[in-house]
Amino acid sequence: MSEAIAVGIDIGGTNVVAGFTTDNGKILQQIHHPIKKFLTPDDLVKTFSAEILSHCKLNNWQLKGIGIGAPNGNFFNGTIEFAPNLPWKGIIPLTKMFAVECITTAILTNDANAAAIGEMIFGAAKGLHDFIIITLGTGLGSGIVANGELIYGHDGFAGELGHTTAIRNGRLCGCGRKGCLETYASATGIVRTMKEWMSNGEETSLSKIPNEKITAWNVYEAAMQNDALAKKAFLFTAEILGQTLADAVAYTSPSAIILFGGLAKSGDLLLQPLKHFMEENLLQIYKNKVKILLSNLPESDAAVLGAAALIWKESKNIFQTI
Amino acid sequence: MSEAIAVGIDIGGTNVVAGFTTDNGKILQQIHHPIKKFLTPDDLVKTFSAEILSHCKLNNWQLKGIGIGAPNGNFFNGTIEFAPNLPWKGIIPLTKMFAVECITTAILTNDANAAAIGEMIFGAAKGLHDFIIITLGTGLGSGIVANGELIYGHDGFAGELGHTTAIRNGRLCGCGRKGCLETYASATGIVRTMKEWMSNGEETSLSKIPNEKITAWNVYEAAMQNDALAKKAFLFTAEILGQTLADAVAYTSPSAIILFGGLAKSGDLLLQPLKHFMEENLLQIYKNKVKILLSNLPESDAAVLGAAALIWKESKNIFQTI
Repeated sequence: MSEAIAVGIDIGGTNVVAGFTTDNGKILQQIHHPIKKFLTPDDLVKTFSAEILSHCKLNNWQLKGIGIGAPNGNFFNGTIEFAPNLPWKGIIPLTKMFAVECITTAILTNDANAAAIGEMIFGAAKGLHDFIIITLGTGLGSGIVANGELIYGHDGFAGELGHTTAIRNGRLCGCGRKGCLETYASATGIVRTMKEWMSNGEETSLSKIPNEKITAWNVYEAAMQNDALAKKAFLFTAEILGQTLADAVAYTSPSAIILFGGLAKSGDLLLQPLKHFMEENLLQIYKNKVKILLSNLPESDAAVLGAAALIWKESKNIFQTI
Repeated sequence: MSEAIAVGIDIGGTNVVAGFTTDNGKILQQIHHPIKKFLTPDDLVKTFSAEILSHCKLNNWQLKGIGIGAPNGNFFNGTIEFAPNLPWKGIIPLTKMFAVECITTAILTNDANAAAIGEMIFGAAKGLHDFIIITLGTGLGSGIVANGELIYGHDGFAGELGHTTAIRNGRLCGCGRKGCLETYASATGIVRTMKEWMSNGEETSLSKIPNEKITAWNVYEAAMQNDALAKKAFLFTAEILGQTLADAVAYTSPSAIILFGGLAKSGDLLLQPLKHFMEENLLQIYKNKVKILLSNLPESDAAVLGAAALIWKESKNIFQTI
């Protein structure tokens, strides 16, 4: 008998990865291409579709559908809309293009929502009905699950915690607003914090690195080597994120908040102060109830599994909404 | 044939009202008692139960259940927990008490959640799947509906927008935290704003009123009579509420926000600047999409209808959760 397969595609600013996954979260095979290779979205769809179909034929896999996680992905429309970090502009009807090319169901959502569904089915949120996932990458993405269902909002754009205001009239954000959480709590945010302090003359071992080359990884390494300013940057990041997460709890009262993505890999350096600052800011009725967990999905697989999980978990919705 | 009836009970800091309602939102009869009359919760349950059962018998009504809206009400436990504005302390298992006394289904939730369900079934949110209700009374309560379902959170305490931080290190709140939204955006909040400014020597027609007697109604009347400081207080309240609502939209992306309760009755004086400040602070993808509406339920009936609606709408949940 042929095995049922869902393809999960993770579209990132650098790479596009497709994985052939089973319904118990095993990735049988992967395809990788750098996104720069594709001059148009059509190029991407044609290349991946041809490879997906030929792999399915070769392995006698039954293709159940294609799930896609992408920045600025809109679940209801199946489109990528005005994604600042992708090479193509405007509105891209990606699910339609894949569905036509592969004659299958295609579902798309933003990358953080895909990760939330992945965590719910295969990861740290297994069995949880109410949780929030926070992806700490270049920006800060989020997916909110309540009553066991991902919250999409009326327009498919719910869960933009990265663009709630952490500091009124604070740092200018790429979105045009001021003080957005992601300008502080993200890989980019912690680097910005360090650079601000360094430009004020504060001492740190990072001064050896050319300013424009400093990364969040450098800040992490310096902190682990006891650099005082780098350690202070992690504390500052944890304080601002903890304050905002305390507010987030007052919205949907989740039993857990799950951290995912590059900055989350700094482990206890971020996690311990984050727990402290969140608890300190929580309303009494929520204290000592909300776990902060690190994603336990293998990092390279998480995005792909999350996208594929759209097919296993959300396909019932898509037939209602398309 | 006997008519099916749900009783909605609204427990407030001053009065307790029970209404016999039909499933199309008609209130056939009401019972009122001042809450001070009841020395214990048991007194309240016994008095109301006897009257509910005798009215049902007299009118040949079939009692489908009793829905209760109460401050600090916990849907999952059917309890009122540590309500600061009620005469009884601790945890009160009110649904159990009513269910035993009346041999019927009893459901309880906090008053703002009850109002949200009332609006969804009978009011301004009819047909909406994603909305937030904000009750502007003594405090600021809220109920969040997403995917057509009220969000309770894992512990039944979701939707405490009044205790999200509007101003970091701002006004001391009754909850012990600082800068909570309800210390600014509520009947109490706008009075506090006026008194702060008056104590700084700012001029207003309200100076004629003894300081401890100033109410939100006085501020409203003064603003309508063109008192500059009172008008400024409405602008200030609208600005802070608008900023927070812009963040709220980034959580659940609702199609509408519905205002309810005393301060909401100030109409355009609050509504017009509130719309302006919310739009100004919204992330681009949400702009010009979110309506701010005033509740259109008859004021005296809304709380009772909302509580009764728990029986019509949520009884399917209660059998799953109790």
